[in-house]
Amino acid sequence: MSAFEELMAFQRQTEALAQVAGRLGWDQETVMPEGSAAQRAEEIGALEGVLHARRTDPRIAGWLEAAQAPDAVGEAQLRLIRRSYARTMKVPAKLAEEIAATMSLAQGVWAECRSREDVAGFLPTLRKVVDLKRAEGAALAAGGDPYDALVDDYEPGMTGAAIAAMFDAMRPRLVALREKVLGAEAPKGVVGVFPQEAQLALSRELATVFGYDWSRGRIDLAVHPFSSGSGHDVRITTRVNETDPFNCFYSTIHEVGHAAYEQGIDAGYALTPIGQGVSMGVHESQSRSYENQLGRSSAFTGWLFGRMREVFGDFGIADADAFYKAVNRVHPGYIRTEADEVHYNLHVMMRFDLERALIRGELQVEDLEAAWNDRFRADFGVAVDRPSNGMLQDVHWSCGLFGYFPTYTLGNVYAGCLVKALRADIPGLDGQMERGDVSAATGWLRERVQRHGGLYEPRDVVRRACGFEPSEGPLLDYLEAKFGAIYGV
Amino acid sequence: MSAFEELMAFQRQTEALAQVAGRLGWDQETVMPEGSAAQRAEEIGALEGVLHARRTDPRIAGWLEAAQAPDAVGEAQLRLIRRSYARTMKVPAKLAEEIAATMSLAQGVWAECRSREDVAGFLPTLRKVVDLKRAEGAALAAGGDPYDALVDDYEPGMTGAAIAAMFDAMRPRLVALREKVLGAEAPKGVVGVFPQEAQLALSRELATVFGYDWSRGRIDLAVHPFSSGSGHDVRITTRVNETDPFNCFYSTIHEVGHAAYEQGIDAGYALTPIGQGVSMGVHESQSRSYENQLGRSSAFTGWLFGRMREVFGDFGIADADAFYKAVNRVHPGYIRTEADEVHYNLHVMMRFDLERALIRGELQVEDLEAAWNDRFRADFGVAVDRPSNGMLQDVHWSCGLFGYFPTYTLGNVYAGCLVKALRADIPGLDGQMERGDVSAATGWLRERVQRHGGLYEPRDVVRRACGFEPSEGPLLDYLEAKFGAIYGV
Repeated sequence: MSAFEELMAFQRQTEALAQVAGRLGWDQETVMPEGSAAQRAEEIGALEGVLHARRTDPRIAGWLEAAQAPDAVGEAQLRLIRRSYARTMKVPAKLAEEIAATMSLAQGVWAECRSREDVAGFLPTLRKVVDLKRAEGAALAAGGDPYDALVDDYEPGMTGAAIAAMFDAMRPRLVALREKVLGAEAPKGVVGVFPQEAQLALSRELATVFGYDWSRGRIDLAVHPFSSGSGHDVRITTRVNETDPFNCFYSTIHEVGHAAYEQGIDAGYALTPIGQGVSMGVHESQSRSYENQLGRSSAFTGWLFGRMREVFGDFGIADADAFYKAVNRVHPGYIRTEADEVHYNLHVMMRFDLERALIRGELQVEDLEAAWNDRFRADFGVAVDRPSNGMLQDVHWSCGLFGYFPTYTLGNVYAGCLVKALRADIPGLDGQMERGDVSAATGWLRERVQRHGGLYEPRDVVRRACGFEPSEGPLLDYLEAKFGAIYGV
Repeated sequence: MSAFEELMAFQRQTEALAQVAGRLGWDQETVMPEGSAAQRAEEIGALEGVLHARRTDPRIAGWLEAAQAPDAVGEAQLRLIRRSYARTMKVPAKLAEEIAATMSLAQGVWAECRSREDVAGFLPTLRKVVDLKRAEGAALAAGGDPYDALVDDYEPGMTGAAIAAMFDAMRPRLVALREKVLGAEAPKGVVGVFPQEAQLALSRELATVFGYDWSRGRIDLAVHPFSSGSGHDVRITTRVNETDPFNCFYSTIHEVGHAAYEQGIDAGYALTPIGQGVSMGVHESQSRSYENQLGRSSAFTGWLFGRMREVFGDFGIADADAFYKAVNRVHPGYIRTEADEVHYNLHVMMRFDLERALIRGELQVEDLEAAWNDRFRADFGVAVDRPSNGMLQDVHWSCGLFGYFPTYTLGNVYAGCLVKALRADIPGLDGQMERGDVSAATGWLRERVQRHGGLYEPRDVVRRACGFEPSEGPLLDYLEAKFGAIYGV
């Protein structure tokens, strides 16, 4: 075997073991008995130890030096292996161990403190997490910006400065839209009880409509919906609130977007470095396209209204137009995960500025709550009423996920570009979606984005798909047009 | 850390990874999407590669040489690690790899050939499996009997000769009992349709009655019921036939017996070599005690009759006595897994003789079908009508599980001894079981057998529990008394 082949064979086993780790995560969130948590932590720890040993295996350096890629796909493989290996080797083993040990405990502390509204109790843990992530960022940046180095884990090639510039361009238009919309009359919401089994049945139908491949997946209930796995085993979860069916339906469509990306990657890339979604931002561009630009469109909600009437009877909404408005109701609120399309990115931008300042040492953990609350009042116009509605609401920072938040909005931005481009390519799309057929749109995304996996850099795959340079413009145009029309503003 | 501590820490991670492999097996049989099989095979292969590398890690030899056990528990740990390491190192790596590669394919060939009733198609694969297992047995036996070496994998300390002597002593009494019973009038069976959901609900109730710890387990459906996992995550499966509720109920009780053993082991032994059932025979002694000696007793079926009447109404059985007879109906048949208590061991004995002759080279694969059919006619009095009812019925040989079959009957023998001893210790047991309370019996088994895990050798743990030398006598006495009374013979 050549050095390239040896490296790829070694890497393939690592990828297979990483899939096993993902499967344990799925198990833990869906079917694991509650008394198994401590043993499971040891099982995952042992597997992570195996993965870390493989990722730092000294043979990789030799293989990388000698390997000759046979083609462009092989070059992409080597590029990703090289990047991952360089990243892993930059972080001292002792720091990596301390990060792993701290994060596995910090999430439990966060959950406990959030339930008690106890910011002071969480601060020592958060301080430790931030210190460790600052150290990791510094080790990775090697003199550069530590926050940029952390962002690079989730969105290769993106920097804090580029994100800040984009967000600064977005904020005024979003704030202006928000103010106009909240000044107008709010549409009616749905009323009634929507039984769990019927919601799940329609949710499965929606997954099928959006192209979910059931032969390589399944859907289960979980507290927080997620998609898990790559290649031939990509599972999703959803949740049910019997008075709010949109929670279930749009969680499902969102996760189908993530899963369709993984399922749509060229089968020849399975269990290789390029055999998974290329970045968090591009991943989110798929889930958000499916959920919002397609799933919450006037055309598709027209079909969904008919199906919901057939399944649930009368639920207080007179016609498809009122239903479209109900699906897209804009409502102020404290919680990011419950936010509508107008508010969502404002939540993300705020977290981005705060976490970037934390990592760069411009904001201290002790001052985070005041900074959060000041900023929330400035952007959202109301005061935070309690920590679980404020700085304790998200799990991310307790898990050390600094640099992750901005990829949510980046995903929305990319979704704006992609759907603008696919709409130009598919003139009859709305007519198809009115009949519950989104296959032209999902097929376009599969062909232009999903099948490539990690073959191109994140921004490149979006640019190639769209045929133009990605920017925030299409998303903002879409939001202003859509909500301007719904609210008559 | 001392050498002992280093070895135990290393071993603990290996045990944790072995639990992960078990969890993948559970996933595959219960929830895995059908299209995921090929990828899963790679995932399991990668994990097995990691486990094999750990089990042959050269540091183990050094640790074993230097390790000083601090106490008797530590000595038992070292004994099991030493045995496992010696066993693993005796098999050449190339042979181990060939065995793994062959078995992963052979099971599929067997399933395909069984569905086509195609013995000739299966023979080349079976020949390869037998050749490999002969070679493995020879490598392990180092001049001794290769079949004994294979038996030792499942039942340490047991030999083919000892099993043959026991089985020879059992056969005449079982054949005589079988002939008497089949000459008498057969009791009535249940009639009706028993809906799946109701069966599963009562099945969960039975699991609870037999002491299954739900906080560390769950029950799901699978084609072939099994118990999976050790320590704090021990899951079981069952199956449902809507016209035969006993299939579901007694499969569940059987698997609860296996699971209760794993759950009942001293919590301090978890993720160590002694933290799991000590042998297949002792494991089966628990499942068979739960299922047969307790679950099919006159006392317990009295309670079950009442519950089934409450749940299902009239199902053609007039009273508890008729129900007891229906549960214990003796029926001739080709299939081992459907056999009653009278026939079951005759099936096992036949397989034992055939597989021992195959491994010792006294029987060739080409002659197996004729040997099977001759022997079946001699022991069961009827001719095999087709291969899927004959030599193609069991998966074991295609998986290379030679030496496994006799542990089923050994488990029955041990169950006979254990339940004789526990009945002597618990005089009011039948009165309790008539009220659906088997806790005194399961508590006795947990205290005397289950909690020890691998602390003692298999036969020793049974001897210590019973207070007498285990033999086939109690099982035969029990069967003759029980079926003699039911059939009036």
